Amino acid sequence: MLNDILDQLDHDKDMALARLCDYLRIASVSTDPAYADDIQRAAEWTRDRLAECGLDADVRPTAGHPVVLAKTKTHKPGKPHVLFYGHYDVQPPDPVDLWHTPPFQPDVRDGKVYARGACDDKGQVCCFLEALRAWRTVAGDLPINLTVLIEGEEECGSVNLDQYLEENKAELAADVAVVSDTTLWDDGRPAITYALRGLAYFDIKLFGPDRDLHSGVYGGTVPNPATELALVLGQLLDDNHAVTVPGFYDDVVNVTDAERAEWDTLGFTDKQWAESVGVDQLHGEAGYDTLERRWSRPSCDINGLYGGYMGEGAKTIIPSFAGAKVSFRLAANQNPETVAAAFERWLHDRTPPGCRWQITHHGHAHPVIVSTNSPYLSAAKRAMATGCGEDPVLVREGATIPVIGSFKTLLGIDTLLMGFGRHDDNIHSPNEKFNLDCFAMGARSHAALLAELANLP
Amino acid sequence: MLNDILDQLDHDKDMALARLCDYLRIASVSTDPAYADDIQRAAEWTRDRLAECGLDADVRPTAGHPVVLAKTKTHKPGKPHVLFYGHYDVQPPDPVDLWHTPPFQPDVRDGKVYARGACDDKGQVCCFLEALRAWRTVAGDLPINLTVLIEGEEECGSVNLDQYLEENKAELAADVAVVSDTTLWDDGRPAITYALRGLAYFDIKLFGPDRDLHSGVYGGTVPNPATELALVLGQLLDDNHAVTVPGFYDDVVNVTDAERAEWDTLGFTDKQWAESVGVDQLHGEAGYDTLERRWSRPSCDINGLYGGYMGEGAKTIIPSFAGAKVSFRLAANQNPETVAAAFERWLHDRTPPGCRWQITHHGHAHPVIVSTNSPYLSAAKRAMATGCGEDPVLVREGATIPVIGSFKTLLGIDTLLMGFGRHDDNIHSPNEKFNLDCFAMGARSHAALLAELANLP
Repeated sequence: MLNDILDQLDHDKDMALARLCDYLRIASVSTDPAYADDIQRAAEWTRDRLAECGLDADVRPTAGHPVVLAKTKTHKPGKPHVLFYGHYDVQPPDPVDLWHTPPFQPDVRDGKVYARGACDDKGQVCCFLEALRAWRTVAGDLPINLTVLIEGEEECGSVNLDQYLEENKAELAADVAVVSDTTLWDDGRPAITYALRGLAYFDIKLFGPDRDLHSGVYGGTVPNPATELALVLGQLLDDNHAVTVPGFYDDVVNVTDAERAEWDTLGFTDKQWAESVGVDQLHGEAGYDTLERRWSRPSCDINGLYGGYMGEGAKTIIPSFAGAKVSFRLAANQNPETVAAAFERWLHDRTPPGCRWQITHHGHAHPVIVSTNSPYLSAAKRAMATGCGEDPVLVREGATIPVIGSFKTLLGIDTLLMGFGRHDDNIHSPNEKFNLDCFAMGARSHAALLAELANLP
Repeated sequence: MLNDILDQLDHDKDMALARLCDYLRIASVSTDPAYADDIQRAAEWTRDRLAECGLDADVRPTAGHPVVLAKTKTHKPGKPHVLFYGHYDVQPPDPVDLWHTPPFQPDVRDGKVYARGACDDKGQVCCFLEALRAWRTVAGDLPINLTVLIEGEEECGSVNLDQYLEENKAELAADVAVVSDTTLWDDGRPAITYALRGLAYFDIKLFGPDRDLHSGVYGGTVPNPATELALVLGQLLDDNHAVTVPGFYDDVVNVTDAERAEWDTLGFTDKQWAESVGVDQLHGEAGYDTLERRWSRPSCDINGLYGGYMGEGAKTIIPSFAGAKVSFRLAANQNPETVAAAFERWLHDRTPPGCRWQITHHGHAHPVIVSTNSPYLSAAKRAMATGCGEDPVLVREGATIPVIGSFKTLLGIDTLLMGFGRHDDNIHSPNEKFNLDCFAMGARSHAALLAELANLP
């Protein structure tokens, strides 16, 4: 049966590309109200395709852009229930003049389709839609229980999604989630991402004098928030580049020997990593190698500094305030709320004389990790091997996909991250593209995943 | 003779105010090319008033706005040669809508004249011009040798003045300089400023990756210039709030017991100083009181911080660079070049792995100090006592007037800083004003100074 389905995908691939191009022609930019009609059209397009695959599909309102929700019509007893998540909205196309072809007029050349959203995430959503379509065509039905949730606000922070999940827990109940919004491994090998780092992000602002002061008249006598902020932030990492906030590392779990062994097979080198960002030396927490620093260790970054005079030349002021964006990437098992509380305490313990803090929290997200022994993960590995013709590697990701943490904390389920993008896909940049062989691998892998999940004991 | 001259000033004071108002009607804003005609008119107005006092007066070109140069016509053997310096240019009047009366239509009310430049520096220049006029009227001549230099670029950094001084050293040769561009002491007591701090100002920029990076993907593995900059700047002051740059304090001279005794009479309180800037606590170098920190100790301030994401909310990037404006106020006897070299070495000793510095120097200026035993200073004290009816206090100033350093380093002369402004004069702000009693005190003090200097043995 699966072979017939894979043959059908191959047979139908020109039509599949035509469908993807239809999707890409809809300028569903979520951050700009000017595109509201396109957002609606993209939601309806998604709903209609899901309905064509035999699902009950609706466009559902949220406090922001609607979600598309679709479900299999009949319950298949004894079969797992999968929640597939993706997003139909896209990043703005700017700067438009750097595109070689118009961002919403998909152009196929050299085995790739170029358009905004080609990879992120319409192309990857279509991998899944084509798998459903092939199953429907060949088998008449899907072999598992399925809920599909395609949102329209991922590119503006999924600001209303958690509330939607909270309010619709029962309807969204599932055994496992599947998401295609990540990439193949660096050299193009199929990969399953089984862990993501979390995030705790802060805007910390230090206030001092009630106005900017002349640094000659007042220098050396009154607290200078810019100087004091630097003196505080200068204590945040020790000589080993480890975070000094008490208890910060308490919940971090060590990588297993099995993980380490797997990572050794990845062909990752520090030299390439450094070259890829134009530095002659990497730098991080002492005692860990670069993949550990990327994936299994938390990190601390100042994402921005501001305050006082920021223009050209000189202005001799003591600023009335200065601030920093400070964020922590959280390793598996760390809790953003615990870290936030500890960091706030750490700051308050260091409040400079005559100054006060204003601390704003942004974008806290839980880290996630899926056990590499999970039967669902094993099914996904077999499915990707079938779909891609090569065993996938198991990797972690240093970045955060907040919704995955929400699936765990709000719905209680793990997520299988099967991604088919490539690092050169220019997501969020001009000339975004999706390789047609990635499109085919994705559709085949998802088709195989349905079969593998249906066969789980 | 001096009493007749002081009577003449009193007799002529309405005309003196009329002359000042004429001066203030000229919108000689130096930073904005739109005011070029007014700049020229202000220079010519200044020249004409000096000529009326019997001086050889010229408008002289520079690489920027012209200077007005005037000299006594005949040499008075055995009498000191004074260089009087001031400026005829003014700050822009913006924001104009906050003025109660138009900035270039002088308005006299409640014993004050309101206009841009009323105090800074046309009003103070006119104190001197009126003293010359009274001497001329009563005595027919001046009792000393005098060179007057009134520049037109003080409000845009005197960028061409050093070159002018260098190229005209012989013509500008004098025994002592006199400048009226400072204020009375905080409570309105007459004051002579005998020391100014110097300045060494830097823009330090730290570069890392060749572009902004995703802080999730790269966090913990590559050098983050914002984080590293904070780690370096965090080392700049020790727990005593003392600058850690090696050798920084080597050349600083201690205040004398006599100075300390004088300062104790000033009625300065930490409480008022803190309240005046809206902080509940002062903060500075341990082991020194606030007036020492203001006047006789160097200070270090971060005047600005910038880099990475500086807007509202969160952006999870590792910035490719971050920077800071860092400046040192230099105490008497410190050398800006020595400090600059030491600070640069200190930075380079701390270059974070994978990063590089770009260091730009701005506005280096020598500190200045005049011996309180100088006969010129004694003459100025007696003159101010005569002119103001009260003995002046001797104070230092934490801020920097670069031209005073240049008079010392380029012309080899000390400067007497006799200022008649008040702290509420709103210089550089809307509703700038000059109190008419300050105007009168200034004119009387300058008239008396000429007599005192002529009487020096």
